Amino acid sequence: MATLQDIGVSALINLFGAFLFLIAFAVLRIQPINDRVYFPKWYLTGERNSPRRSDRTLVGKFVNLNYKTYFTFLNWMPQAMKMSESEIIRHAGLDSAIFLRIYTLGLKIFAPVMVLALVVLVPVNVSSGTLFFLKKELVVSNIDKLSISNVQPKSSKFFFHIAVEYIFTFWACFMLYREYNNVAIMRLQYLASQRRRPEQFTVVVRNVPDMPGHSVPDTVDQFFKTNHPEHYLCHQAVYNANTYAKLVKQRAKLQRWFDYYVLKHQRNPHKQPTCRTGFLGLWGKRVDSIEYYKQQIKEFDHNMSLERQKVLKDSKLMLPVAFVSFDSRWGAAVCAQTQQSKNPTLWLTSSAPEPRDIYWQNLAIPFISLTIRKLVIGVSVFALVFFYMIPIAFVQSLANLEGLDRVAPFLRPVTRLDFIKSFLQGFLPGLALKIFLWILPTVLLIMSKIEGYIAISTLERRAAAKYYYFMLVNVFLGSIIAGTAFQQLNSFLHQSPSQIPRTIGVSIPMKATFFITYIMVDGWAGIAGEILRLKPLVIFHLKNMFIVKTEEDRVRAMDPGFVDFKETIPSLQLYFLLGIVYTAVTPILLPFILIFFAFAYLVYRHQVRFHTQSPVVSNSPLNFGFSWFTMQIINVYNQQYESCGAFWPHVHGRIIASLLISQLLLMGLLASKKAADSTPLLIILPILTLSFHKYCKHRFEPAFRQYPLEEAMAKDKLEKETEPELNMKADLADAYLHPIFHSFEKEVELSSSSSSEKEDTTHQEETPEVRVDKHETQSSSPVTELGTPSHHHHVYNSTSPASHYASAYEQSSSQYEYHYNTHQYEEHEYRYN
Amino acid sequence: MATLQDIGVSALINLFGAFLFLIAFAVLRIQPINDRVYFPKWYLTGERNSPRRSDRTLVGKFVNLNYKTYFTFLNWMPQAMKMSESEIIRHAGLDSAIFLRIYTLGLKIFAPVMVLALVVLVPVNVSSGTLFFLKKELVVSNIDKLSISNVQPKSSKFFFHIAVEYIFTFWACFMLYREYNNVAIMRLQYLASQRRRPEQFTVVVRNVPDMPGHSVPDTVDQFFKTNHPEHYLCHQAVYNANTYAKLVKQRAKLQRWFDYYVLKHQRNPHKQPTCRTGFLGLWGKRVDSIEYYKQQIKEFDHNMSLERQKVLKDSKLMLPVAFVSFDSRWGAAVCAQTQQSKNPTLWLTSSAPEPRDIYWQNLAIPFISLTIRKLVIGVSVFALVFFYMIPIAFVQSLANLEGLDRVAPFLRPVTRLDFIKSFLQGFLPGLALKIFLWILPTVLLIMSKIEGYIAISTLERRAAAKYYYFMLVNVFLGSIIAGTAFQQLNSFLHQSPSQIPRTIGVSIPMKATFFITYIMVDGWAGIAGEILRLKPLVIFHLKNMFIVKTEEDRVRAMDPGFVDFKETIPSLQLYFLLGIVYTAVTPILLPFILIFFAFAYLVYRHQVRFHTQSPVVSNSPLNFGFSWFTMQIINVYNQQYESCGAFWPHVHGRIIASLLISQLLLMGLLASKKAADSTPLLIILPILTLSFHKYCKHRFEPAFRQYPLEEAMAKDKLEKETEPELNMKADLADAYLHPIFHSFEKEVELSSSSSSEKEDTTHQEETPEVRVDKHETQSSSPVTELGTPSHHHHVYNSTSPASHYASAYEQSSSQYEYHYNTHQYEEHEYRYN
Repeated sequence: MATLQDIGVSALINLFGAFLFLIAFAVLRIQPINDRVYFPKWYLTGERNSPRRSDRTLVGKFVNLNYKTYFTFLNWMPQAMKMSESEIIRHAGLDSAIFLRIYTLGLKIFAPVMVLALVVLVPVNVSSGTLFFLKKELVVSNIDKLSISNVQPKSSKFFFHIAVEYIFTFWACFMLYREYNNVAIMRLQYLASQRRRPEQFTVVVRNVPDMPGHSVPDTVDQFFKTNHPEHYLCHQAVYNANTYAKLVKQRAKLQRWFDYYVLKHQRNPHKQPTCRTGFLGLWGKRVDSIEYYKQQIKEFDHNMSLERQKVLKDSKLMLPVAFVSFDSRWGAAVCAQTQQSKNPTLWLTSSAPEPRDIYWQNLAIPFISLTIRKLVIGVSVFALVFFYMIPIAFVQSLANLEGLDRVAPFLRPVTRLDFIKSFLQGFLPGLALKIFLWILPTVLLIMSKIEGYIAISTLERRAAAKYYYFMLVNVFLGSIIAGTAFQQLNSFLHQSPSQIPRTIGVSIPMKATFFITYIMVDGWAGIAGEILRLKPLVIFHLKNMFIVKTEEDRVRAMDPGFVDFKETIPSLQLYFLLGIVYTAVTPILLPFILIFFAFAYLVYRHQVRFHTQSPVVSNSPLNFGFSWFTMQIINVYNQQYESCGAFWPHVHGRIIASLLISQLLLMGLLASKKAADSTPLLIILPILTLSFHKYCKHRFEPAFRQYPLEEAMAKDKLEKETEPELNMKADLADAYLHPIFHSFEKEVELSSSSSSEKEDTTHQEETPEVRVDKHETQSSSPVTELGTPSHHHHVYNSTSPASHYASAYEQSSSQYEYHYNTHQYEEHEYRYN
Repeated sequence: MATLQDIGVSALINLFGAFLFLIAFAVLRIQPINDRVYFPKWYLTGERNSPRRSDRTLVGKFVNLNYKTYFTFLNWMPQAMKMSESEIIRHAGLDSAIFLRIYTLGLKIFAPVMVLALVVLVPVNVSSGTLFFLKKELVVSNIDKLSISNVQPKSSKFFFHIAVEYIFTFWACFMLYREYNNVAIMRLQYLASQRRRPEQFTVVVRNVPDMPGHSVPDTVDQFFKTNHPEHYLCHQAVYNANTYAKLVKQRAKLQRWFDYYVLKHQRNPHKQPTCRTGFLGLWGKRVDSIEYYKQQIKEFDHNMSLERQKVLKDSKLMLPVAFVSFDSRWGAAVCAQTQQSKNPTLWLTSSAPEPRDIYWQNLAIPFISLTIRKLVIGVSVFALVFFYMIPIAFVQSLANLEGLDRVAPFLRPVTRLDFIKSFLQGFLPGLALKIFLWILPTVLLIMSKIEGYIAISTLERRAAAKYYYFMLVNVFLGSIIAGTAFQQLNSFLHQSPSQIPRTIGVSIPMKATFFITYIMVDGWAGIAGEILRLKPLVIFHLKNMFIVKTEEDRVRAMDPGFVDFKETIPSLQLYFLLGIVYTAVTPILLPFILIFFAFAYLVYRHQVRFHTQSPVVSNSPLNFGFSWFTMQIINVYNQQYESCGAFWPHVHGRIIASLLISQLLLMGLLASKKAADSTPLLIILPILTLSFHKYCKHRFEPAFRQYPLEEAMAKDKLEKETEPELNMKADLADAYLHPIFHSFEKEVELSSSSSSEKEDTTHQEETPEVRVDKHETQSSSPVTELGTPSHHHHVYNSTSPASHYASAYEQSSSQYEYHYNTHQYEEHEYRYN
């Protein structure tokens, strides 16, 4: 076991490692070759077309030779701290600002408690000294001397631990309450200051009943004209465009090949590029590439045009779903929150997500299928969490040396070398596990998709929840109790319920050393890796080497990814859990948690600042347009939508769950220490914590689920006063058209109106920047005139919503600490009368 | 242990006992002296003033001498079956009709399964014959030979049991689905056919924020004019009249004494009645009673007038609650289902209960207090369920012979007699338990009141839920596993979760005999007792002997109680549980359950029919007016409100829970029989059952919680067409005034406008019947003109809502099997265009 010195050395090594990472970052970021990795936003927004070059030599194209820039490598730290919260909201959206608050919440909860625990508990633990006597029998680490293990059984000193647990719980609840309140206010303020956006007026209606003799649009129109006569405006039908979307994707691929060959031809006009028509271009007839792809694209366009006719005409491909728009926010809020039909499985209404937040594929799922899907996925997640080791063990049993020999016998001379043999034997099983863990978030996201949620933000939150369960069982419990999760489950099923917290509780102090190491390796180094953007760096250079053919491909290879909420938030929640559980048990763990939170806060602040230096930030149409099909799965959270902190209730709930777990485990631990008198004292805490949670749920959660009528009405009135004559219908007309149809219109238009040769050039020259400018100058107009799928962003987000917000935000900054006391309420209430 | 013969004999005895009860009923009901017990409704509605007398002799006043009537004593049986469901709805309301469906559901679920189980399982069990070999060691009853205990461990015959459990589960779910569907349709049809009633247009708003400088009514008016400008009509403030209500109660008491003495004086004009002014009239100065009470009433009226001024003027006594009325059902439905304020703890809206359903005392509870109350009551119910034996054991330890000796030493010679001693020792502890069980429902109802629900119907449903938990733990589990619930809890905490179903499962077949006896004694005899109305009979005669002074008192002593849902439904659910659990284990129990359901169905049908023979039934204003304070706690379910079957989701949910329990226990039982292969087969069932439940919850429960906008709009339109000009505001003006103020107005008016002598006569003559007539002739008018608290019933219910319904119901009887298929939907949809 590790002694205190070992931990110290390890901490130093890790800090040094983190420092090295930072230096590496400082060096790498100013190399032109990495420009697209560290400044992707600049390219996306068109402020940069090619890497900055320090000079024009060949070396200078890849390596930065300007030595002065190397000395400013820590500049970003003070810069990161300079930004105020309102600036962060303006630049990176509310989600990012609220995400950063998780870190400050961690600091606020743990910093005072750390002081208390170190001052009170460590002396109590050290002075007890049971373990000194046991030393000869057990190998005891120094860390354990500082922990609760050191206190004799039946000692009355345990009341210090109980007292600390009490104080900690109350403090944590107090901070949680304050933070929930702040976040709820920030959210409502943000919503109140947003300018007109289609989702405010729109409701998504699912399970429109099928009425013989009436088409879906007729039915919808009829229903809402009858039941919401005063506010119903119009609606947008939804087409099942999944087949069509595949065609679009294939066409885009052909287009890229075509562009590539055209470019190749331009660079070397003497040589006509050729290719083979067979599989992967490896065999088949050799043809002129440009002609071949032009022909192919033409055919494709014809097929797509047919398919499009089919989609729009065939009533079977019209889904029983519609986006219904109202003439006021009030009308939309009413429709979203009420039950429409007496059959509660028909006409299901809910607030529409932002257009770019919609996961179109899931709109078609009927109600009864949803129940079954949720059941199947529930069972699968349970199986995944508890039995995940089974397939991995199977793969590992294959991925050994014998397996390798069988597959690749020519490697036998190499693998017979002793050191390579041992390396492989240690490496291959680990690799199988790593690959599994690496694809896990994606698997979980796919599972969430199967569950049938229609908003990408919901999908990601559900995936995050699943990931948290996985980590709770496999990282937290799995580390404390040796053995696979399945073995744990089995042993728990055969233990009495009162025995389980005891079993876990006893092991907890012993694992403190392990978790300290975990925090340093996974937490500290992970954060340093985040600033280095190691994964995008490697992937970009790999892609650049093997895949990238045209400039457009290079744009696609750039990964402008922001924080991957669905992986980061569960990890954060795990750190909260560790801190909360060990506060009363081994308080020496707290400083490590605290350093993690502080460091991570700094780094993410930088990332927020850094990735958002250009004014058009969170909803760059290009990113959205180009990466619709490929990137939406990978980390584009901040790019794709603004959920206004919808994840906060989950964060809050899981910290509460951590508190409950810590209380239970402390109860088990103390029971095993025969401090039985403490159980009645400790049993009150979970009850109080649960009722606190229930209260918070009542008090704050509706703000994250429903739009209050008071707010809607106030906003409507204000708008009516400022803009008395506006044509809502035109604005809302095709805000919720499937993006695929926008892009289709472009293709058809171009291929029909211009000669094919001219079209090629257009396509070739149409670099991202140009497209953006085109939109900026075009007036907003219905489908037929528009170019790219990002059109509907453009209509409402020509300046980003975050920046709309910012001005209102600053104006109302005096009202920022806005609480629901009656006086301010009154002011708010009568302002609009 | 009981043999099959014993059970048979016991069954015969019980059947004979039930038959005796029926004969006793037939004899007792036609005795004039019991007239008010068996025909209470006739008195309440004014069709009878005094008992029917067969002749005018003194004996004839108490005993029926007309021998012919004795021969028709089983007449009621065919009569009870004659009534159609629509007639039941018309006569006794929807709640009663749906209540009867619980019994038919029991018959439908168990009858076919009984046949299956008896044909398949009994032969399988008998043919196995393990127990024959064991007979010498164990005392085995014949019943056990028919049960699963008789099958050898590891036998493959267990697959028959598993198959029966599967078939049973699917059949039960199918029936549950059909029934839920029917009940939901009945409910919606009933609501659709109801005539205009204040609750359709009204929303109760709680937690109105306190705004300095504005009174509550101003605030409410302001808020709803702003946020529901199109539909808001008016509102009714709520006063904290709890103190005032006490005064009214005291005054009524004085009034009764006064009436009593006046009556006494009239009968015997020569003797001036006197009484003493001291405690209970036992000592103090002797005064003239009539004068004394007249004086007292005068003083009281003065005080009450002051108090009333205080209540109406003092803004502190104005509660932050209001009944807000809208000009359409649509507006009210929207307001009830949406979130109003951005602080979700303010402006809490929900559909208003019927005026007579409101539990006024709870309207004042603030939001934060609700959370705490729920927590406290939750803990208390848990304690009550699991630790209820502790106080009883304590009381029992006091209520023994030594205690009795100490309290009443003069009884010592008697108690020393051996047979009395043994009787007392056996009797007293049992009595303590009986008293506890007798007051338990009332205790649970009080607990529910503390929880803060504002509708009496909700209160009773919550009390029923608590009673069910109590019975589940203490009757079901408590009988299966010997020992108190606390001991069970303790042993469960120290057992592994997989062990618990096994422990219980093993004991289940052994307890079949006990439960058969239980069904016969508690079920069959209980039902026979219900028809005899034993409790009301005894109570009425006791009251008549000791308390009743005036005619009015006699009316009060009558207990027109109908089914006590909060006790009956949990008991029923227990029978469902028994039947479901024993289907696969000891199918011989099923016939007993079936007889119970059939017999109970017959009896309750009779009760429904019998207690509601007069046209004005379920909402007699008198019953409501007179018994407001005293009767609302005791069984007046059907009298007080019409919940339109709001209890059905609970019935459904608990039958599902019973299915789950049976599946778990069968799993445990089979595991103990080492039929381990069966576990994977059986583990699928609970998952399927749970998802079925979830589906039903989604599909049907909203119909019981929210009023769909489609329905509201259709009803509004229809009404606008039929009655284009109606003054809603006048109708709604004081529908939701606290009933106490209506009655107050009466008192004040009378005491101020007429001489006190005249007033006395009025009061005296104002028998229930007269009052009803008075209302019938009066026009509906605001508070100041009205007489009794029942005024607002009168306004909307001058003919009972059930009878409004009936005509609509019969008109639409062809549409009765109305399903949500699209064709009919269409018809419904376009009818109003």
